[in-house]
Amino acid sequence: MEPHRTTEDESQPSIADVNRRIRRLSLHLTPLQPSSHSHSHSHLDMLTCAKANKPEVDVTSLSRYMRGEHREIQEKIFDFFNSRPDLQTPIEISMKDHRELCLRQLLGLVREANIKPFRFVAEDPAKYFSISEAVGSVDISLGIKFGVQYSLWGGSVLNLGTKKHRDKYFDGIDNLDYLGCFAMTELHHGSNVQGLQTIATFDPITDEFVVDTPNDGAIKWWIGNAAVHGKFATVFARLILPTHDSKGVSDMGVHAFIVPIRDLKTHQTLPGIEINDCGHKIGLNGVDNGALRFHSVRIPRDNLLNRFGDVTRDGKYTSSLPTINKRFAATLGELVGGRVGLAHSSVGILKISVTIAVRYSLLRQQFGPPRQPEVSILDYQSQQHKLMPMLASTYAFHFASKYLVEKYSEMKKTHDEQLVGDVHALSAGLKSYVTSYTAKSLSTCREACGGHGYAAVNRFGTLRNDHDIFQTFEGDNTVLLQQVAADLLKQYKDKFQGGALSVTWNYLRESMNTYLSQPNPVTARWESADHLRDPKFQLDAFRYRTSRLLQSVAARLQKHTKTLGSFGAWNRCLNHLLTLAESHIESVILAKFIEAVQNCPDASSQAALKLVCDLYALDRIWKDIGTYRNVDYVAPNKAKAIHKLTQYLSFQVRNIAGELIDAFDLPPYILRAPIAMQSEAYSQYTQLVGF
Amino acid sequence: MEPHRTTEDESQPSIADVNRRIRRLSLHLTPLQPSSHSHSHSHLDMLTCAKANKPEVDVTSLSRYMRGEHREIQEKIFDFFNSRPDLQTPIEISMKDHRELCLRQLLGLVREANIKPFRFVAEDPAKYFSISEAVGSVDISLGIKFGVQYSLWGGSVLNLGTKKHRDKYFDGIDNLDYLGCFAMTELHHGSNVQGLQTIATFDPITDEFVVDTPNDGAIKWWIGNAAVHGKFATVFARLILPTHDSKGVSDMGVHAFIVPIRDLKTHQTLPGIEINDCGHKIGLNGVDNGALRFHSVRIPRDNLLNRFGDVTRDGKYTSSLPTINKRFAATLGELVGGRVGLAHSSVGILKISVTIAVRYSLLRQQFGPPRQPEVSILDYQSQQHKLMPMLASTYAFHFASKYLVEKYSEMKKTHDEQLVGDVHALSAGLKSYVTSYTAKSLSTCREACGGHGYAAVNRFGTLRNDHDIFQTFEGDNTVLLQQVAADLLKQYKDKFQGGALSVTWNYLRESMNTYLSQPNPVTARWESADHLRDPKFQLDAFRYRTSRLLQSVAARLQKHTKTLGSFGAWNRCLNHLLTLAESHIESVILAKFIEAVQNCPDASSQAALKLVCDLYALDRIWKDIGTYRNVDYVAPNKAKAIHKLTQYLSFQVRNIAGELIDAFDLPPYILRAPIAMQSEAYSQYTQLVGF
Repeated sequence: MEPHRTTEDESQPSIADVNRRIRRLSLHLTPLQPSSHSHSHSHLDMLTCAKANKPEVDVTSLSRYMRGEHREIQEKIFDFFNSRPDLQTPIEISMKDHRELCLRQLLGLVREANIKPFRFVAEDPAKYFSISEAVGSVDISLGIKFGVQYSLWGGSVLNLGTKKHRDKYFDGIDNLDYLGCFAMTELHHGSNVQGLQTIATFDPITDEFVVDTPNDGAIKWWIGNAAVHGKFATVFARLILPTHDSKGVSDMGVHAFIVPIRDLKTHQTLPGIEINDCGHKIGLNGVDNGALRFHSVRIPRDNLLNRFGDVTRDGKYTSSLPTINKRFAATLGELVGGRVGLAHSSVGILKISVTIAVRYSLLRQQFGPPRQPEVSILDYQSQQHKLMPMLASTYAFHFASKYLVEKYSEMKKTHDEQLVGDVHALSAGLKSYVTSYTAKSLSTCREACGGHGYAAVNRFGTLRNDHDIFQTFEGDNTVLLQQVAADLLKQYKDKFQGGALSVTWNYLRESMNTYLSQPNPVTARWESADHLRDPKFQLDAFRYRTSRLLQSVAARLQKHTKTLGSFGAWNRCLNHLLTLAESHIESVILAKFIEAVQNCPDASSQAALKLVCDLYALDRIWKDIGTYRNVDYVAPNKAKAIHKLTQYLSFQVRNIAGELIDAFDLPPYILRAPIAMQSEAYSQYTQLVGF
Repeated sequence: MEPHRTTEDESQPSIADVNRRIRRLSLHLTPLQPSSHSHSHSHLDMLTCAKANKPEVDVTSLSRYMRGEHREIQEKIFDFFNSRPDLQTPIEISMKDHRELCLRQLLGLVREANIKPFRFVAEDPAKYFSISEAVGSVDISLGIKFGVQYSLWGGSVLNLGTKKHRDKYFDGIDNLDYLGCFAMTELHHGSNVQGLQTIATFDPITDEFVVDTPNDGAIKWWIGNAAVHGKFATVFARLILPTHDSKGVSDMGVHAFIVPIRDLKTHQTLPGIEINDCGHKIGLNGVDNGALRFHSVRIPRDNLLNRFGDVTRDGKYTSSLPTINKRFAATLGELVGGRVGLAHSSVGILKISVTIAVRYSLLRQQFGPPRQPEVSILDYQSQQHKLMPMLASTYAFHFASKYLVEKYSEMKKTHDEQLVGDVHALSAGLKSYVTSYTAKSLSTCREACGGHGYAAVNRFGTLRNDHDIFQTFEGDNTVLLQQVAADLLKQYKDKFQGGALSVTWNYLRESMNTYLSQPNPVTARWESADHLRDPKFQLDAFRYRTSRLLQSVAARLQKHTKTLGSFGAWNRCLNHLLTLAESHIESVILAKFIEAVQNCPDASSQAALKLVCDLYALDRIWKDIGTYRNVDYVAPNKAKAIHKLTQYLSFQVRNIAGELIDAFDLPPYILRAPIAMQSEAYSQYTQLVGF
């Protein structure tokens, strides 16, 4: 685990390194222009500035370790779209055309490339998420339309319905005859799903449900596939049953119903359905979001997705689950796959972004010492500071999201109750943490690439605009982090009542006893690189922070509840709770990264990963050094040593940055718009521009 | 200066407040829909939740204090575009159409609304920047095209040329007959202007300069107005003179030349000029950026902009300035107005963004205590944490940019040498600090408004995409901050050599003696609100930090220069230098804000501003609490007190947030796309959506 390996002869391998690097970089710059510019070579000369004393990295081996098992199907998807320029999204396209193109892309994927993803939703989620990630790399709109169809609409039928629904809808969903929507969000209720107001009243005379939008605020809003293409919608509505008591009706809470919205043959909007177009969005304009309003729309009783609750012919409610809250939780619990997919895809987008920015920063030169060639901008400390911790975080998130997908797959197989809770909190936490990070990074990458980063061909704009809403949909990040915090508090209380802790949270058991003892005044002064790079020190520091935040917020909540009530107390501690949730997620991410380093079979890859992991850990600790200093967990000189080592590690990672992005193994054509779509100036000088 | 004023009867005025608030908010929601929705009133009911014990704010008086003296011409501009739907930028528009629309907008402004801005560039910069800000509010592309024409192309003719140029070009520039470009940036040299490679060789036989692009990297790139509309370009090129010695030529450094690029009548590209289109950008697609290449283009000797250096008929170089570096500095020094304008416009964009986000957060409700109405999302601590320090920063930047414009105007009048240096560093620092902050805030505002923030009609998308490049053009922010740091270091050295300090930097004189003495162990423990809200404590803390950073980086630079040389040492300390520059700019911003509070004539406005100023100061101190704790400038309990008070102030500012955004006095139609441009769903339910 020694990342500073030197070779016997420092100068020879270094030149070989550089040449290999240049070859790899030029592979990215495909298709090469037929006319080779005389200056392009001098443009690459600065690579010889790369420090000779750099760790060796075997990109092939590292890439093999990183690559998922479903790389083959991803490559099939990339090859298909690469071979079909008519299905590639141009830089400028109207909303209307983009929506149609996006549908054609989806149809091409399923009917021409013969990718049939639906069965993987249930049977092999890891494969499904890999397909989804690849599809999203082609055009994020396509990734989302794909997700609406298979994960949201299809997933709701599979997971909330029963055999009769599967039998009736499976093939149509899979082959895209039954394009569908997921109609949960309302104009006045997005995050607060329990506040939904659409109603579905059972009519025992006709054996139907009558779906109604009782007021403007209850209009279903932002519904993907609704504005133009959808035939069906899974509609979330309060199930209303007639009763024989004085109230006349009984509200059974939010349930899901299949509502046909357009005629299967004529595509006409069905009677009682009112559809409006939500119009232009900041991004994702390939997805047709619409607003749905229901005017006494009648659907057969069978259209209730009845896995967790059913209504008999004579209007009696039956359920295996005892309360409205439990049924609501079970219903929402089945939708967790969407968040897993978003976290996974967000990491994929971060990989694209960081690759573009690092590649450009290696090639672009500006300023330099007097009378010497200009230097690569990645040689500036400020550029390393922007991009190297980001590259390290990308690796960290890669392993964390891989872990999440594994846990999710296991959960889908075993339905283990503890695992369900674990995956719920972990997916909420990772989705919000990763998507927030990626959103910020997309801006940082653009800025780091200066004017050329602002050229549309280089993708930062569409990536940022399309990805932006990942922070909001499938659960607003601020709301999801509160769920993580609530889960932690529950576990904390359980611990004192002797309950079991779920797997991911396991460290808290120990932490409550050990981490929260007074900081050790001796170790608080240890400053050696060996100590700071010891995974135990790093993980202890992360977990100490989480444990401390948890203990202190629990006490504060208890105190404030007495005067403010539980809602007021929660609000009074909200920032504290959000910090706790983020801190916990970071602990999980680091733990998984450390495991991934330890499990890496190839020594050179392991050394590179260790370097990257140390940078991730120490950069995070340094970013929150105020907290550690405040409680003297870290003495002043140790804080300085952490800062110094972080800068040193950034510099070391910079020296293998080219290899680290190569190991992501991204197909060149998703890193830049095809030459054919570039402007006159760009298509002539692409190579010179360095993208 | 007591912001906690209570009235005799707490409940009555509070209802009056709320009603006034509702009226103001509904004024924003123009044009009101003819059909008034029955639910819209209940939608506003949550405003009664606003705490009764809130400071009174007289919006009219506060607004009068905030408003610049050039409000009249701004309103003329707003009224003109409001009355001309054909000149309003639709939500969806192709690049080609947007470029043409943007030209029509500019022509309309000058030839129909009869705004003639050119003379203000020199005579009344404050008025010029106010026009520029208003024009940019209509469409940022228009603001930039306007700036290219008057500030860059026009400004270079006025400021780098002499009377003959002014006489020949003034009217054509003013009335838009002479649309022009500012051709400085090259493909391989953006930030490093001294590295430009385009050459202009004097030919004594024909009395002409011959302009040439010697290699691909020297192609002028991103040149606004070049792709389609420009007739002229101010081209920055190395002036080459023939000599009679063995070298044959002499490179006199970078100079500016007027080069006609298209025929005035036919608009055909002139011989020897090659123009390519730079194509789509992330934003600002109303501006036609192009790439220029020169093939032995001959221009008369008179086309040299000869204010700082000239060439005689017989090829001799003359200048009032002794060295190439001094001439280069004088040339670039004249271009500082662009940065002043960007800082000013960026604050204007931040005002728009924060107004949209705060207004929505007041109206949008989600979740609430059990069995009670849902609460306004601005009542959540997390939302206050996102938006209230941002609102405070907007006020802070308003006064700082006002100060910068005043100093710049003074400089244009007096040409005082010390003021020139001062304005140079201050404009570099404020431009980079403010544009970075606004860029981040636009993303935060979008996220804070959830799904509705993602609707294109609500403007966050175009604002972010258009504003994004403010961080890069007219000087990359990372580069500009280094200029600020370099200037501080120069002042620091001068101080020890007995030199004078420039006005803005004045505090450093004192600080080197007082601030850098050991932190006072007594005051480090003072925790009362009175002390923390004392401007002296706040300013001392900001300045202590800057002084300490300055002293420590000077020592580090000295140490590292011995081993790494000055370039290497600078790079080794780069992050430290950037932090120093930001810290200094924050000190200047706070000082100007405190002055503005003190000078406010109206007591209620002053109390409101004091509250906002305290939040700005304490939030900044808390954000960097690690630094203060590390040197025990602040004891642990004082740190806690600062945190607690910051949250309290956020809450207090939330209670007057509606009034604070009203005081910006923004015309409703720049806060949201006109109804006519909205989608079906949006145009039906705009009022309900809360935007």
